[in-house]
Amino acid sequence: MARSSKAAVSAAGARVIAMRGAGYYSSNTAGAKQVIDSAAELALSAIAGMALPADGRPFAIADYGAADGGTSLDMMRRLVGAVRARDGGLPVSLTYTDLPSNDFSALFSLLQAEGGEGREGGLGREPGVFVFGSGTSFYRQILPDATLHLGFSATAMHWLSRSPGPIAGHTHAVGAAPEERAAYRAQSLADWDTILLARARELVPGGVLVMANFCVDENGHYLGWTGGVNMHDRFAAHWRALQDEGTITEAEHRAAALQQYYKTAEEFAAPFRDPASAVSLAGLRLERVFTRVTPCPYRAAFEQHGDAASFARSYIPTLRSWTESTFLSALDPARGPERRRAIVDRFYDLYEAEVAASPAGHAMDYVHCFMVIRKV
Amino acid sequence: MARSSKAAVSAAGARVIAMRGAGYYSSNTAGAKQVIDSAAELALSAIAGMALPADGRPFAIADYGAADGGTSLDMMRRLVGAVRARDGGLPVSLTYTDLPSNDFSALFSLLQAEGGEGREGGLGREPGVFVFGSGTSFYRQILPDATLHLGFSATAMHWLSRSPGPIAGHTHAVGAAPEERAAYRAQSLADWDTILLARARELVPGGVLVMANFCVDENGHYLGWTGGVNMHDRFAAHWRALQDEGTITEAEHRAAALQQYYKTAEEFAAPFRDPASAVSLAGLRLERVFTRVTPCPYRAAFEQHGDAASFARSYIPTLRSWTESTFLSALDPARGPERRRAIVDRFYDLYEAEVAASPAGHAMDYVHCFMVIRKV
Repeated sequence: MARSSKAAVSAAGARVIAMRGAGYYSSNTAGAKQVIDSAAELALSAIAGMALPADGRPFAIADYGAADGGTSLDMMRRLVGAVRARDGGLPVSLTYTDLPSNDFSALFSLLQAEGGEGREGGLGREPGVFVFGSGTSFYRQILPDATLHLGFSATAMHWLSRSPGPIAGHTHAVGAAPEERAAYRAQSLADWDTILLARARELVPGGVLVMANFCVDENGHYLGWTGGVNMHDRFAAHWRALQDEGTITEAEHRAAALQQYYKTAEEFAAPFRDPASAVSLAGLRLERVFTRVTPCPYRAAFEQHGDAASFARSYIPTLRSWTESTFLSALDPARGPERRRAIVDRFYDLYEAEVAASPAGHAMDYVHCFMVIRKV
Repeated sequence: MARSSKAAVSAAGARVIAMRGAGYYSSNTAGAKQVIDSAAELALSAIAGMALPADGRPFAIADYGAADGGTSLDMMRRLVGAVRARDGGLPVSLTYTDLPSNDFSALFSLLQAEGGEGREGGLGREPGVFVFGSGTSFYRQILPDATLHLGFSATAMHWLSRSPGPIAGHTHAVGAAPEERAAYRAQSLADWDTILLARARELVPGGVLVMANFCVDENGHYLGWTGGVNMHDRFAAHWRALQDEGTITEAEHRAAALQQYYKTAEEFAAPFRDPASAVSLAGLRLERVFTRVTPCPYRAAFEQHGDAASFARSYIPTLRSWTESTFLSALDPARGPERRRAIVDRFYDLYEAEVAASPAGHAMDYVHCFMVIRKV
């Protein structure tokens, strides 16, 4: 999960972060799709209340951090349908953004798929629908000024634009010491301003952003910890175990830190609360903000079937889809790709064995902050 | 060569055509870049004489069949500079199109590259420049109605939207029997109408297309035959040799036919000559058309250095870059990828050995038809 792990690459030394391509991501992220389906309701409401372009320009929708487009596809169909229901002749453009390393071929193959016997054609093949990709970080302006009607982003913006540094003895900011955590927080708040100001330039007046981002909720819960086993602590423990058994070096151990931060709803809302902030002055207004926990679908399935090994086999790949590149890139390149791959395989095998042997409390519930933001 | 081998995939049974990715294409296609640099002059003239958008919309440029964007990058910089020289504040959008299987990551990595010590940053990082990819065949409408100012395409549209069938005893329509050749010609003429009508919808009134496509020129010359050794005959001969020695089957031999056709300048111009044609009625006018031969840069280098083996080593990869997928896909999938790769390696090795042993007359001069087309 974590819909796109493609954090922006802002500085020369930025870490390489990449999703596994070729549809691996979407097929392992059933929960991410549930979140997007929820956000779709917010987006549909926004479209219903929005002035449509009357000057021949397309109604422009963007998905920021779209990965292979699989998780948002049903929503996109509904959004296009909602625009069409109001104005059947209005062209609609869909711009999917992600880092250059994203698997855009998977995206375009999905969107431009030919229809046929019992098979629906890709959304990009519908008359009047125009599909684009942009391999541009969402930390930069992606669309020209005042051309965007509806911007959407799900489960992408917890990835920071650059690494605030190592985290001693852990692999995520949620387990960092206070001063390390403060550096991650500061980067995240600065990044949030950057994201919002870029979107403020892109939006038409009256345009809307609908976002669902990972957060720390009112109960202190976050992705991977909603009261049971703490997923991030388990990552850290298994990574530590690899060092303890001599598989990885101390330097490699230290090099693995997910370039992420989970903000609270208050932190998300802060720029809007201050009428003198750059975000407020740019015309952005927060219309709705709430948090919601989406139960882990793999855990839910386990509650039904009760097969711990099967649960572990389905659960670990979804964790792997968004963490693998961080752990791979922490390993010394001198080991060569095969050895590095083998080490990372062992890392996830250890985690899978733990879950299979002792499944109680393992779950990756999603904890999201949903927002509706309007440009005045 | 052949800047992009990504012919459109229009019918369910269309053949798989793909370029080798990750920059392999551009670095082996020095001649293709020379052609684009020539076409750039036509495009610069077009921009100089064009009404610029005054309603806040971007000046929109598209490159159809762009592959990794490497060969057109210098031209794109010049075009953006020309727009900026006329209106410094005008946003410019660059849309790069190719088939979904194109290496869009290579494209975006090039365009979004960070600058640094002695390194120019990517064109997509310039303020007011917005870069998009579209994994949509140029046989379909790619941009919304009346949004395109300058469309560009080089060395891409000789790829047909679907295969007109096998070619007995040869691997290209230039060596086909009359009735086979007629089928390729008919497909090519129909495809040309389809391409032009899609562009007519995209262009703003006054917008311009600049194209440089492979052709058969007034001397009967075409890519791979400008009086010396006929490259297409050599492909056919070496492919035949693989069958004769028992390396490939008769069915595999028959299955290799490049999905291409080289039109004459007259064939390119025909839809414009008829005022009642769909293309004319759609508002497209042919302002310039001429053919030009661009000497093979590998051959030119050989004339200087005289090292036949070195010539063969540089020459064959550029041929391979746009033919490999056709020959690979002709081989029985049951052979498995490694064996198929080995057979294709042998095919190009045979050709390379021939050139090294007997370099006289080998050259892949480009024979292009340049066109400037305006939407009234």
